[in-house]
Amino acid sequence: MKAHITIKDLARELNISPSTVSRALKDHPDISPETKKIVKELAEKLHYKPNLLAQGLRNSKTNTIGVIVPELVHFFFSTVVAGIEDVAYAKGYNVILCQSAEMYEREVTDARALWDSRVDGMLVSISKETNQFDHFQELLDEGLPIVFFDRVAKDLDASQVVVDDYQGAFNAVEHLISKGCKKIVHLAGPENLEISKNRLNGYKDCLAKYSIEFDDRLVVSCPEGTYEESKRFTNILLNTSKDIDGVFGCNDMAALGAILALKEKQISIPEKVKVIGFSDWQLSNLIEPRLSTVYQGGFEMGQAAASLLIDEIESDKETISHIQKVISTKLIERDTT
Amino acid sequence: MKAHITIKDLARELNISPSTVSRALKDHPDISPETKKIVKELAEKLHYKPNLLAQGLRNSKTNTIGVIVPELVHFFFSTVVAGIEDVAYAKGYNVILCQSAEMYEREVTDARALWDSRVDGMLVSISKETNQFDHFQELLDEGLPIVFFDRVAKDLDASQVVVDDYQGAFNAVEHLISKGCKKIVHLAGPENLEISKNRLNGYKDCLAKYSIEFDDRLVVSCPEGTYEESKRFTNILLNTSKDIDGVFGCNDMAALGAILALKEKQISIPEKVKVIGFSDWQLSNLIEPRLSTVYQGGFEMGQAAASLLIDEIESDKETISHIQKVISTKLIERDTT
Repeated sequence: MKAHITIKDLARELNISPSTVSRALKDHPDISPETKKIVKELAEKLHYKPNLLAQGLRNSKTNTIGVIVPELVHFFFSTVVAGIEDVAYAKGYNVILCQSAEMYEREVTDARALWDSRVDGMLVSISKETNQFDHFQELLDEGLPIVFFDRVAKDLDASQVVVDDYQGAFNAVEHLISKGCKKIVHLAGPENLEISKNRLNGYKDCLAKYSIEFDDRLVVSCPEGTYEESKRFTNILLNTSKDIDGVFGCNDMAALGAILALKEKQISIPEKVKVIGFSDWQLSNLIEPRLSTVYQGGFEMGQAAASLLIDEIESDKETISHIQKVISTKLIERDTT
Repeated sequence: MKAHITIKDLARELNISPSTVSRALKDHPDISPETKKIVKELAEKLHYKPNLLAQGLRNSKTNTIGVIVPELVHFFFSTVVAGIEDVAYAKGYNVILCQSAEMYEREVTDARALWDSRVDGMLVSISKETNQFDHFQELLDEGLPIVFFDRVAKDLDASQVVVDDYQGAFNAVEHLISKGCKKIVHLAGPENLEISKNRLNGYKDCLAKYSIEFDDRLVVSCPEGTYEESKRFTNILLNTSKDIDGVFGCNDMAALGAILALKEKQISIPEKVKVIGFSDWQLSNLIEPRLSTVYQGGFEMGQAAASLLIDEIESDKETISHIQKVISTKLIERDTT
């Protein structure tokens, strides 16, 4: 029996993106009349039929929102989830969660499982491994509203809620410089994530503003994201370049590793070396010395993402214009600076 | 139109439990022939029909397990979830999670949402507020396998995985006594939870073993479970009775509050007062002084619960005999004792 023609088949045939095909078929204003004509002609020629089963299910509302996060144990993501639930339950939606455990494969099966359980929409923060997004594109093509938060899928046509990572990082480094730091290490995040790139750029641009030369030997990427890892890297850096006087961690876990390394070497914080993190996890206020960091409003992010999603779910418009919401950060000065 | 007769209607009419009715209708061996006769006669008289829709859905397997935990941010529950996922994904099941946020009402809607998303079975740790269990009994009556872990529903006919809270608490208090403590505070958990009762009993019996008189003024229940709360209570206790020399926290968060209170008063730990927690959360090893505690094998608990559940899901037996698995604890000595 001949396989069911999908939007992806049409996209491949025409060598354009599935979302363009999908929007062309829906007469989305962004798509040129020419493209619409070509797409619709091919759809007719190949007897393309939209996935009626999926549409049928979509029409029966479950009042449930599916959420995919990389790791629920991370304090940041758990506060985002709290914000999501705050809005969702107030508006009569249940929240079901999956964690990808930072694995692309699991993210794919999670997305499928949530789709199969007929959620009305999804909120997603992508895994460290994820570099391609067909598993979400397919669901968007089926008409499922998806809003990405924090770790977003840049190229997908969907709403996003992000933290102002660039400005937050810039402010953190400026804070270290204002305290007299001249040789500042950056324990960076996984390179494929936008948030890592933005925080690194904030670091670079702030150094440039104060005419401190950028030295790539002072930037180490921490793919694991454990404090053991960043402790290990900090030790290596401290052994190779003696006059390090500041550390900017891509998150509080990275900064914590730096603190543990410095304490082990009995290098006084903040006198000799100043440390600042990013996130303001619960533990930042419990360790000694208490960690200066950048508060990134996880709860507000969750609230914003849930509101955007529910608006899309409840919208009766044919085409929804997607927006990007940026949550601004706040610098929190504690004992490590 | 006449309302659909449910198992609960029959139970109410006969003044017996829904699970007895359900098992009588299924010819469960535990139920006496007399009871079966009475139940079946009434079922016939009232034209009781099992929920065919639900059964139909149950027959189409989704290979998804639903999990309800009180709080995902708790390190213990997140390690349990990791253990659940470890087994579930290896056996081809997806895991979707809900958190009750310690609220009975939300636990009820979560159970409903997971049922509606047609999970093959559920793993549940109940909320602090939950004192009655109809919302789970109904699902058990529909034939949904449910396994409870850590915070279990004692009276339900379902499998359970629990930590040996009694022995773990006994060992913790014995450890304090072996270090010379004679006046030991217990920051107890919420009174309605079995785990709180078991840990309190372990505390009491250990004092008795060493003929230390039990003093109920030294036991304070911490319903919130925040370190701010236990810090507040510890302060009150330290002000009223000067010669306190030990603190046993029902969990690490409670112990942390005690540590913060003691440090604020500059009472040296462990010289003047020794502190031990329960759980071995990540932060126990990061705070100063590093917290002695009782490791309770969250990961193993998750693995065990998932294995039990999947066995039930995949069992072709008419009646499944439920079992209780007990995970033993391990005492971890650090700087606070």
